[in-house]
Amino acid sequence: MNINLQLDALRNAYRDGSTTPRQLLPGLRDKAAALNPDYHLFIHLLSAEELEPYLAALDGRDIDSLPLYGVPFAIKDNIDLAGIPTTAACPAFAYVPQRSATIVEQLLALGAVPLGKTNLDQFATGLNGTRSPYGACSNSVLPEYPSGGSSAGSSLAVALGVASFSLGTDTAGSGRVPAALNNLVGMKATKGLISTAGVVPACRTLDCVTTFTATAREASQLLALTAKLDPRDEYSRSNPSWNDGSAFGAMRAFRFGVPRAQDLEFFGCAEGPLLFADAVEQLKAMGGYAVELDLSPFLEAARLLYEGPWVAERYSVAGELMEENPQAVLPVIRAVLAKAPAVNGVQTFRAQYRLQALKALCDKALDGLDCVVTPTIGRPVTLAELHAEPVQRNSELGYYTNFMNLLDYAAIAVPSAFMDNGLPWGVTLFGRAFTDQYLLSLADGLQRQQGLAAPAPTVVARNDRARLVVCGAHLDGLALNWQLKQRGARLVESTFSSPDYQLYALAGGPPFRPGMVRVKDGGVAIAVEVWELPSSELGSFLTGIPAPLGLGKVQLADGRWESGFICEAYGLEGAVDISHLGGWRAYLHLLT
Amino acid sequence: MNINLQLDALRNAYRDGSTTPRQLLPGLRDKAAALNPDYHLFIHLLSAEELEPYLAALDGRDIDSLPLYGVPFAIKDNIDLAGIPTTAACPAFAYVPQRSATIVEQLLALGAVPLGKTNLDQFATGLNGTRSPYGACSNSVLPEYPSGGSSAGSSLAVALGVASFSLGTDTAGSGRVPAALNNLVGMKATKGLISTAGVVPACRTLDCVTTFTATAREASQLLALTAKLDPRDEYSRSNPSWNDGSAFGAMRAFRFGVPRAQDLEFFGCAEGPLLFADAVEQLKAMGGYAVELDLSPFLEAARLLYEGPWVAERYSVAGELMEENPQAVLPVIRAVLAKAPAVNGVQTFRAQYRLQALKALCDKALDGLDCVVTPTIGRPVTLAELHAEPVQRNSELGYYTNFMNLLDYAAIAVPSAFMDNGLPWGVTLFGRAFTDQYLLSLADGLQRQQGLAAPAPTVVARNDRARLVVCGAHLDGLALNWQLKQRGARLVESTFSSPDYQLYALAGGPPFRPGMVRVKDGGVAIAVEVWELPSSELGSFLTGIPAPLGLGKVQLADGRWESGFICEAYGLEGAVDISHLGGWRAYLHLLT
Repeated sequence: MNINLQLDALRNAYRDGSTTPRQLLPGLRDKAAALNPDYHLFIHLLSAEELEPYLAALDGRDIDSLPLYGVPFAIKDNIDLAGIPTTAACPAFAYVPQRSATIVEQLLALGAVPLGKTNLDQFATGLNGTRSPYGACSNSVLPEYPSGGSSAGSSLAVALGVASFSLGTDTAGSGRVPAALNNLVGMKATKGLISTAGVVPACRTLDCVTTFTATAREASQLLALTAKLDPRDEYSRSNPSWNDGSAFGAMRAFRFGVPRAQDLEFFGCAEGPLLFADAVEQLKAMGGYAVELDLSPFLEAARLLYEGPWVAERYSVAGELMEENPQAVLPVIRAVLAKAPAVNGVQTFRAQYRLQALKALCDKALDGLDCVVTPTIGRPVTLAELHAEPVQRNSELGYYTNFMNLLDYAAIAVPSAFMDNGLPWGVTLFGRAFTDQYLLSLADGLQRQQGLAAPAPTVVARNDRARLVVCGAHLDGLALNWQLKQRGARLVESTFSSPDYQLYALAGGPPFRPGMVRVKDGGVAIAVEVWELPSSELGSFLTGIPAPLGLGKVQLADGRWESGFICEAYGLEGAVDISHLGGWRAYLHLLT
Repeated sequence: MNINLQLDALRNAYRDGSTTPRQLLPGLRDKAAALNPDYHLFIHLLSAEELEPYLAALDGRDIDSLPLYGVPFAIKDNIDLAGIPTTAACPAFAYVPQRSATIVEQLLALGAVPLGKTNLDQFATGLNGTRSPYGACSNSVLPEYPSGGSSAGSSLAVALGVASFSLGTDTAGSGRVPAALNNLVGMKATKGLISTAGVVPACRTLDCVTTFTATAREASQLLALTAKLDPRDEYSRSNPSWNDGSAFGAMRAFRFGVPRAQDLEFFGCAEGPLLFADAVEQLKAMGGYAVELDLSPFLEAARLLYEGPWVAERYSVAGELMEENPQAVLPVIRAVLAKAPAVNGVQTFRAQYRLQALKALCDKALDGLDCVVTPTIGRPVTLAELHAEPVQRNSELGYYTNFMNLLDYAAIAVPSAFMDNGLPWGVTLFGRAFTDQYLLSLADGLQRQQGLAAPAPTVVARNDRARLVVCGAHLDGLALNWQLKQRGARLVESTFSSPDYQLYALAGGPPFRPGMVRVKDGGVAIAVEVWELPSSELGSFLTGIPAPLGLGKVQLADGRWESGFICEAYGLEGAVDISHLGGWRAYLHLLT
């Protein structure tokens, strides 16, 4: 029987007894083994003996006690699975790790079952999936195209239906390019959210562990389960609460950046502009407001990745082997690394200065946006084209991906269409660090537009910005408005509360202050403004508010509840009811 | 007449007509000129003609319209003042800038008046103040000692009473070591808070502009006036609101780290341990709770600065000149830079990895602390000792300072005592980035302990942590407490509210929720807990709180007001008054 491997569907199949891990996994293993001669997706498939301990660990366990009970997953072969060789697609480099990578340990503890180690561009250096002595990975849909890489086999494992999800890595785009080419969601979360301990580095300052899934919702679940500070990884970072996965939700109106026409590059692919324009329209239909974005500083940062000193990081991993045994390393990888020994410290720092300057520009551009959309790749290339021009064609694949990790952004590659020839096509949604779950919500919305996702979540998607309803001295232009502007706030809308409030002029002052009080009867609609500010700044705003005022939830005219000013009842002593004026500005007007 | 140059005193002198800028400045200029043959503090003193435009700009201006009206200041000669040569203490390197550094432009716009450009260790490479072709800077108190450096002349300008404050720079400790030796407050604020645009880089990724002042209060004022995002400086960073200067205040109980005995190093100075122990006692007397700290990862990071690749950054600035014209660069500086060309990219990245690993350890150590105290220098060295062993003695001066910028911490050097021979001695208070104003409040408290500062401020000093009073499901161990722990919160105290509250069990649930309501009459004291969490996490906590609850101000038994849970009056419909139980835990007990 055909089991749907998506997380929720598989759990239901386990729950209703349609299958068990001991029934499912060997079958998937056999399926993978049958696919491997054509697709070369696995470097090592676990044997029955190697699989047994993971299945045994599930015996007698309650399905619902493990969030990933019996979920089959594949592991890119630059990520350690204890007891199984890690090759990084270089047999001479191989070693057998005693301990699994942290991310693998986490997944095993959650009940997931590893199927094997997947093929990749050697040392994760490449974006196409053909740079491996274990064979070139062809595309899951059109075999004359590559899978994309470097996380080639991992993308195929999910696309060809042998794993629910898979682990990749991403330094330049290795977790996103294969997603675009194989109709998958590729999640390159913020650097440091998923531990890289136990991963063969490509560029250690930039590397991310990624996931391939069929849906954004599954990626959200995996990120929520695994984004934990890891003492084994010094690049590990705490995940802010707004990004903990409870923020995976439905979209409200949002602002998204769209690259200027002159920054878009499709390398002669006539369908590309139309497919991209269609994705932009899908985002607009979801409530997005498109803002033109100058992509040039992003693209300049992208060029630093291979033209700058960061190749020295790759050399730091594979250089010694290459010097001792040049034949052990593929010629195309040798060519990339060959530039590294000439890089000196001065050049390294100067490139870091330049990157910092570009990041300042890019951050500024992102400041008022909730996300940016780009194509994930400009044009798919055939295996024949790659063979003819392996470096140039590979480099084109990174046009929209190479800047992401250098600039410390989060990015989700999500399918948005199919090309006329049937090849999948997709876009990337990217944004500030720690907006991963928000970007996943957007990607989920896109998938829902395409009829591919579950019903809309009932919660509202959140990112690193918070909204605040103000009704008094913080209104635009009034006495305390600077407290918002100082915190980088922007006015989102001028509107009214629901008709359930009374407005009082509190005793005392100056400064004169209103109290807005929700009442059961006799309320009116009060003129308010909704501001948006970085969530990290809201706390210090709160601590500066004197009694009897505070921040709670205020209902707006359209029924939404947003954070905003409230007033304790005891503070109304001596206050004057000014509800009939409808707002604080009208009251101030009377005073003058 | 003798004018007190401290900011507030000088403003009063201008206000009451005791002096005017046109009276004061030429006198200070003459005084500096008279001191210069002995102390070599100025490389360039402004001539009467050069001073004139700055004085003219004040003519007819209202004193109170300019926060730094007529305040004389000195500028380290690696910071640009338009039209005056910048030498970095290397005549062959000199250039005449068209535009002033951003920090100088800011100060001029605020009304401050520049006196001249001060002497420094060449290219700001040194901590002693003798490495200059413009003469060695001797100490302001004991001439057989050095001034300390590299911001040598700037420290002397304030210590010898010719400027209210001065600008230095600090990469390894150049803004702190001279403060310790000359009885000054040396403020090395968080990297990026004061713009470095228009400053000759030492290590551009690490450089800070610093101030020397007589008091921490003046440093606080200067930081509040100048900590602004600068588009000219890509390393510029936004200042969070809790650090805007309104947080400069009185100390409440705090936790401070004290290095383990085995990590303290006084290089044979017998007085050092006693003086340091005394400073620790002073901090305890201010309400500090001392926590032993393993300083070894900090010290290992310190060693990276000169033993690691960061010398390549210095070479990036002066290397070309040195190659073309070796005699233009002092031999001791050449010796430092000589290591740089051998540094390659791989080494550079590996050192950055090591630093990241150390920073993870150090950050963890600082997590539960409000600050750390160390000596600023282990032992003062005489000019003769420096002359005999210029590299070793200089390097000893950086024992407690070299790690600071690498680890991205804020640090304030503050005087704490005098040695038996009369030489000033001081400690450094350091902490997480963006806790500058809090550290300055602590330094102010230390100065007040010594009878050197103005009366205690009336506001409470704040840092990057916020306190929160909880009374219901967020209490330790209860159902929603994880929302605090997830955000890195720690329990500060279990206490009671002031006797002005009623506690209600709100209708609805589960989850069952209390409403704590302040009342004019009939209130009781309610059992509450005070938690402390990163301010940046408080906003997301707030947005997750459903109506009718919110966060406002709650009064505690001892009269303090802290942020905490409040409840809107309309939410009490159907609620049960449980005030007689005295707290939520007692109510839950009844339910079970």
